[in-house]
Amino acid sequence: MQNAVNERLKATIMRLAQVSEAEESVSVNSTAALPSVEAIRHIVSLVKDIVFPGFFDKRQTVGDIRTCYIGMNIEKLGSLLQAQIARGLAFDTQVGEETMTARAAELTLAFIERLTYIKEMLYSDVDAMVHNDPAVKSCGEVIFCYPMVQAMIHHRVAHELLTMGVPIIPRIISEQAHSQTGIDIHPGARIGDHFCIDHGTGIVIGETCIIGSHVMLYQGVTLGAKSFTRGDDGMLLNVPRHPIIEDNVTIYSNTSVLGRITIGHDTVIGGNVWLTHSVPPHSVILQQKAVNSSFTDGAGI
Amino acid sequence: MQNAVNERLKATIMRLAQVSEAEESVSVNSTAALPSVEAIRHIVSLVKDIVFPGFFDKRQTVGDIRTCYIGMNIEKLGSLLQAQIARGLAFDTQVGEETMTARAAELTLAFIERLTYIKEMLYSDVDAMVHNDPAVKSCGEVIFCYPMVQAMIHHRVAHELLTMGVPIIPRIISEQAHSQTGIDIHPGARIGDHFCIDHGTGIVIGETCIIGSHVMLYQGVTLGAKSFTRGDDGMLLNVPRHPIIEDNVTIYSNTSVLGRITIGHDTVIGGNVWLTHSVPPHSVILQQKAVNSSFTDGAGI
Amino acid sequence: MQNAVNERLKATIMRLAQVSEAEESVSVNSTAALPSVEAIRHIVSLVKDIVFPGFFDKRQTVGDIRTCYIGMNIEKLGSLLQAQIARGLAFDTQVGEETMTARAAELTLAFIERLTYIKEMLYSDVDAMVHNDPAVKSCGEVIFCYPMVQAMIHHRVAHELLTMGVPIIPRIISEQAHSQTGIDIHPGARIGDHFCIDHGTGIVIGETCIIGSHVMLYQGVTLGAKSFTRGDDGMLLNVPRHPIIEDNVTIYSNTSVLGRITIGHDTVIGGNVWLTHSVPPHSVILQQKAVNSSFTDGAGI
Amino acid sequence: MQNAVNERLKATIMRLAQVSEAEESVSVNSTAALPSVEAIRHIVSLVKDIVFPGFFDKRQTVGDIRTCYIGMNIEKLGSLLQAQIARGLAFDTQVGEETMTARAAELTLAFIERLTYIKEMLYSDVDAMVHNDPAVKSCGEVIFCYPMVQAMIHHRVAHELLTMGVPIIPRIISEQAHSQTGIDIHPGARIGDHFCIDHGTGIVIGETCIIGSHVMLYQGVTLGAKSFTRGDDGMLLNVPRHPIIEDNVTIYSNTSVLGRITIGHDTVIGGNVWLTHSVPPHSVILQQKAVNSSFTDGAGI
Amino acid sequence: MQNAVNERLKATIMRLAQVSEAEESVSVNSTAALPSVEAIRHIVSLVKDIVFPGFFDKRQTVGDIRTCYIGMNIEKLGSLLQAQIARGLAFDTQVGEETMTARAAELTLAFIERLTYIKEMLYSDVDAMVHNDPAVKSCGEVIFCYPMVQAMIHHRVAHELLTMGVPIIPRIISEQAHSQTGIDIHPGARIGDHFCIDHGTGIVIGETCIIGSHVMLYQGVTLGAKSFTRGDDGMLLNVPRHPIIEDNVTIYSNTSVLGRITIGHDTVIGGNVWLTHSVPPHSVILQQKAVNSSFTDGAGI
Amino acid sequence: MQNAVNERLKATIMRLAQVSEAEESVSVNSTAALPSVEAIRHIVSLVKDIVFPGFFDKRQTVGDIRTCYIGMNIEKLGSLLQAQIARGLAFDTQVGEETMTARAAELTLAFIERLTYIKEMLYSDVDAMVHNDPAVKSCGEVIFCYPMVQAMIHHRVAHELLTMGVPIIPRIISEQAHSQTGIDIHPGARIGDHFCIDHGTGIVIGETCIIGSHVMLYQGVTLGAKSFTRGDDGMLLNVPRHPIIEDNVTIYSNTSVLGRITIGHDTVIGGNVWLTHSVPPHSVILQQKAVNSSFTDGAGI
Repeated sequence: MQNAVNERLKATIMRLAQVSEAEESVSVNSTAALPSVEAIRHIVSLVKDIVFPGFFDKRQTVGDIRTCYIGMNIEKLGSLLQAQIARGLAFDTQVGEETMTARAAELTLAFIERLTYIKEMLYSDVDAMVHNDPAVKSCGEVIFCYPMVQAMIHHRVAHELLTMGVPIIPRIISEQAHSQTGIDIHPGARIGDHFCIDHGTGIVIGETCIIGSHVMLYQGVTLGAKSFTRGDDGMLLNVPRHPIIEDNVTIYSNTSVLGRITIGHDTVIGGNVWLTHSVPPHSVILQQKAVNSSFTDGAGI
Repeated sequence: MQNAVNERLKATIMRLAQVSEAEESVSVNSTAALPSVEAIRHIVSLVKDIVFPGFFDKRQTVGDIRTCYIGMNIEKLGSLLQAQIARGLAFDTQVGEETMTARAAELTLAFIERLTYIKEMLYSDVDAMVHNDPAVKSCGEVIFCYPMVQAMIHHRVAHELLTMGVPIIPRIISEQAHSQTGIDIHPGARIGDHFCIDHGTGIVIGETCIIGSHVMLYQGVTLGAKSFTRGDDGMLLNVPRHPIIEDNVTIYSNTSVLGRITIGHDTVIGGNVWLTHSVPPHSVILQQKAVNSSFTDGAGI
Repeated sequence: MQNAVNERLKATIMRLAQVSEAEESVSVNSTAALPSVEAIRHIVSLVKDIVFPGFFDKRQTVGDIRTCYIGMNIEKLGSLLQAQIARGLAFDTQVGEETMTARAAELTLAFIERLTYIKEMLYSDVDAMVHNDPAVKSCGEVIFCYPMVQAMIHHRVAHELLTMGVPIIPRIISEQAHSQTGIDIHPGARIGDHFCIDHGTGIVIGETCIIGSHVMLYQGVTLGAKSFTRGDDGMLLNVPRHPIIEDNVTIYSNTSVLGRITIGHDTVIGGNVWLTHSVPPHSVILQQKAVNSSFTDGAGI
Repeated sequence: MQNAVNERLKATIMRLAQVSEAEESVSVNSTAALPSVEAIRHIVSLVKDIVFPGFFDKRQTVGDIRTCYIGMNIEKLGSLLQAQIARGLAFDTQVGEETMTARAAELTLAFIERLTYIKEMLYSDVDAMVHNDPAVKSCGEVIFCYPMVQAMIHHRVAHELLTMGVPIIPRIISEQAHSQTGIDIHPGARIGDHFCIDHGTGIVIGETCIIGSHVMLYQGVTLGAKSFTRGDDGMLLNVPRHPIIEDNVTIYSNTSVLGRITIGHDTVIGGNVWLTHSVPPHSVILQQKAVNSSFTDGAGI
Repeated sequence: MQNAVNERLKATIMRLAQVSEAEESVSVNSTAALPSVEAIRHIVSLVKDIVFPGFFDKRQTVGDIRTCYIGMNIEKLGSLLQAQIARGLAFDTQVGEETMTARAAELTLAFIERLTYIKEMLYSDVDAMVHNDPAVKSCGEVIFCYPMVQAMIHHRVAHELLTMGVPIIPRIISEQAHSQTGIDIHPGARIGDHFCIDHGTGIVIGETCIIGSHVMLYQGVTLGAKSFTRGDDGMLLNVPRHPIIEDNVTIYSNTSVLGRITIGHDTVIGGNVWLTHSVPPHSVILQQKAVNSSFTDGAGI
Repeated sequence: MQNAVNERLKATIMRLAQVSEAEESVSVNSTAALPSVEAIRHIVSLVKDIVFPGFFDKRQTVGDIRTCYIGMNIEKLGSLLQAQIARGLAFDTQVGEETMTARAAELTLAFIERLTYIKEMLYSDVDAMVHNDPAVKSCGEVIFCYPMVQAMIHHRVAHELLTMGVPIIPRIISEQAHSQTGIDIHPGARIGDHFCIDHGTGIVIGETCIIGSHVMLYQGVTLGAKSFTRGDDGMLLNVPRHPIIEDNVTIYSNTSVLGRITIGHDTVIGGNVWLTHSVPPHSVILQQKAVNSSFTDGAGI
């Protein structure tokens, strides 16, 4: 009987060992190392420590030591990032990781120089949160506890890398934030200063979104695509298909805003709305009022 | 004073050490080991490595080595799974884990034989995603980054185990995907090929759902129950109570579809809809248009 | 050329080493240790082991050993909690952690004495779940697998600590549940017995919510604030601004209930509703019926 | 060329996959799990915590909590030890681990009852060390720092288990001490109270040694066998072949004492001696005096 | 029967929970935290990274980054060391760890200032090794592989701390080297520059040893005490009792040199010698020649 | 005052940041990655699993799975080893790791082909131990517990690599065994089949030793160099300087055999002997008999 079991096992192994047709089309370049998700996690965590020194890595960071601290973290960031960018480039082009070294070094340096900009934007986001949530007790609480801070560190880093042409890694970075916070921002989205997300679970911001300053989103808001354009070959085209949100817009929970439409500045959109057309500035958009019938039996609704 | 503290501590310990009435009814069989969540995580991760060799475990998997690789992973999977199934059976029946060994061995072998089917289905899901999201840059990106892939590996494994009658473990597997991706699919749900989830956070698919081929769900979609049927003893009955979704249906973000209704094939349901009745094929269902009042003061909505 | 690279690196380090204006206002007290998120995670996990002995830590817990087990866990909990409370107090007042020792000891003891109450409430929540979900196979399954149990352990612990005046830690505890389950309950919310959350992803319950007994919430429900009140200085006031939910209320998926309104007892609110006004007891609130147009072309909606 | 490499690899794999003749004779029972070295390490560490509460596991252990602490550790020790003893028995007899459960339970309980004796002996060893080393600053320093304490905890535990007939595990325990301290005491050796080892590296104490009270050994001392007795079949016989050391004997560094000889009580043996015959009580044994030639050239000795 | 087992377990727990007389005299101050062996391991490892940058922590350490690197490591070292010294002081005096803070800060700073001296001495040791072992291929090999380097880093750090009056910690440091290398150097020993140990297992260097420059020891050498002096109360006195080794002395394997004797400079002592009297400079000391009898039968020696 | 502290810290940092003269001569090639001690540990552990399948990694290794198991381990071994050899070559020549890839691949393949030889030798060592130690209960016990097995796996691997010209790595491998077992065998030593080490702590075997078949060494035995030959430049020459041990020789504990001498076959050398001249076959060498004076007073020896 044990023999019969072994035969069945062996047959399954053989079937699975065959490279199926479907598999062939998706298989990775077998000699290239894929980017390391752990290293990428480490990279984002170093950016956190550089931007908010003393918060997440509990070390003294005053005076000369502060400079040493930031210097060391940048050196470490640079070394990790360069290796991962080289792998990312190899993932894209299917050439070896080594030949990508020089390009990776350039991109890494360029990214490091963008850190002052990233830092400035993140502090503006924290500032906005402090001014928008009465439950906030201190700025430190926002930095230390709010999922928005995690999500925006990941996004602002991923967006810079995507803009520089780094493949795959931005997407890994944004998925790490997505898994941790439930906030899914495509690295391609352009987001202005003083951006604010409260709670955030279920938020989706699409690849071609353009978001102004002082925009506030609540949990469950989707800034998505309504429909897709196909090329002559029937394949989907990657064209602008997500909303433009102007300055000073607030969107309440679970609302879906879809398609390349424009939400005019100083607008408020209530929750649970399905919105697929542009609205002028200073609008207030609300779902039609719900119906209230008296309760009749235990079967409910 | 220290004495007073000790007295209060001791009193609390004594109160908590008593087995309360509520506790009695829920207590586990004290001699049975519960399934190990770490082992179950490992099992699903081995299925990932078997189905997508080279992606998550970064080892060479070409030629003869590919067969060795898959053979070893199946052997390891089998040994881990058999132990956990034995525990799961013991959890259910309150008899010892050892007496379940033979049954567990059978079920494990049956599961392993289903891996080729699981693999086929998962590649069809990846294929669907590639054809439905213009943001996709490569098939590898989907496998490596998209939460849908995590969710569907977990679901397709959990569903097979549930179908074979394995207790508790399918539920643990689906909760692991839920925690990681925000996608909550009950292991009982029957889901066809080329299934597609974009973003996914907040999706709920109930136990008795039946979903056809080429169905696409966006984040926040609920395929749930509207009301429950109670038996003569007043207890809830586990009867079909979730929707049937036919082929080629797309449902946009945050929509709730509830009850044992049927959504006809080739239908599109817009976002933020509350739907509790069946719709015929080729339907387009949309929320009533939102109201736009001009913005008047800072108090907002 | 390497020199040029070094110069650019050095310049970036120097720019980042400067304490920016924005940074100055948010910087933590440099001599105080922040609370440890790992220790806090451990604390909540000990409460789990004390309340549900034998489920998560797989040890024998019968007879005399049960008392030892609970005694040891309470001792460990006490020692970890006291240290973290001292840090939390220091975070708030910017005085050293040591001077907070006596106050922390008092609060810790008070918390431990509340554990019997917390336990009672949690068992009532489990009981409610068992009676509300036909998919439940056993009480043990709820405790072991349902995200609601995680969320409510975190909430009931965090709420007690907040009520005692412990700073920052309750918020860290609730964010840990949020990240893991997608359920975001502010520690300030007051929640009655037999509380039930199904699936839960995307649920938000605001700081000043008051929730009665036997309330059931589905995924994506928001109990939030509609607008904020500002003081004479223009700063937001932390006033009651979230709903009051009376006994025996059920709210379906993705509905938003906003503002200091009252949902009368024995009410059912359907999914995807935007509700900003009070409703009387025994109400049934539903979204206006969606529009069904026949499907015309591939462009969809 | 890659083909040639693959061929060579494959040939090596095939050669190694064959079960060689030598291998056949030593192969373990393939269905039995070997004892876990990690679990055994944990078991000894629990004995340490039970015998020296508060030293190695830094928890409060006063008053009622002390009892809880020891109770929990004994419960944990019992559960770990029973499982390992069952494996050890299976290792020996080549029957399944499960059938050994009852015997393992008995032995475990018997071992636990010996813990008070083990504790008493270990405190006598610590006491002896304090009275024999002028470098000792406090008793705590001996317990916390001296390798002798590690070695003797391992030995006294291993010896009890061996005496009860537990296979293989005693040997694993003694090798763990050997690797950590360089002190190699066979679990079979019988060692009296107030036993003292200073420094200890290189000490070897053979299986059939019998050592009295108040014996002191320095580093590098061997109490070994001189020659072996073979049976009629030519195989080595496991007969008494190591020295008997009576009370109050001190042996200095690197001395070798070999064979079933007796070292009379109140004897001192100097260092670097090769001793293969018995000596009467009150002896002083010294190496013959070294030769001192004046130094002549750089070639040295 | 289970009852009988429980009774026996309970009885054992109760016996062990009693504080025995022997235990009373050695028990630690129950409110003081003992030094952390992990933290101490980390401290020594930081000294290694500071003294040999680039060898053990594989980071770029050139130019400005080298200064940052050393600065950060010194900051981290300082913070860890100060905490452990405070605990060490509390271990000694049985007063709380907090009251020791100022003293600990002073000692930490003083230690950090000694690092340049420690570094100089360690490089002289490496240099000596390179000139004494023909098997050495490069200086890097010595630093990276030779146990002597580990042993001497530990010793030179431990000796500085002991000299400053830090309790217990020096001993923990030296035991960590002992366990790892088999080389046991008491922190009190005074050792000159260009000190060399080859292989090293079993070497013991006592507390009051004084060793000159350019001394070379082989494995198994003991520089120990021969006998002890007792005070009027019968307790051992901690007086000079170990050898003085002058410059340019080489001692071969396993030799024991005991008592407060002086080995004159430029002396060679062969292996396996027992030496308890002083020898003049330029001596060559050898064991008496061994006896060679022809081999007669299989019983051996 | 804080300022003064900072000044002192800064001064120390600056002094340590300077590259001292001694440091300059030993500094590693700053762009080369040093071999990873963790990877090397993993490599040796894979050899263990390949040679003794089922012992250390507790997996089923029968039938076809055995081949898969060995295949996978060889693939993993190959990939790890190639990377480390490339680093080792770079360590030696100070050229980049990448340029060493082809050479590393060749050496790795050559090493893998030597595994069958290594396996054969190791089984002969185990066999010898079983026939030489009456305390052995089973072959499995030797493989699982005896430090000799660890030491010889490391040595036989290290020796092959050294013979192939791989730099630094053989030394790291032998030091790992040294630290774990106290047995220090230079990778250069040539050791025949059926080699046996009992206990082993303190054994040293020098680089140019040649050891025949069926040789047995006890703890503390040194096969070392007596003196060194210097070249015209005064530097040490790496010439044959360690003993040749012919077949069937047994050497007892702590004996030192030094210089390029020959110990004839079928010889027994007793313990604690200092031997610097060749001995003919069939010799029995013993230390001169120790002196026994009667014990007179408490001052001891």
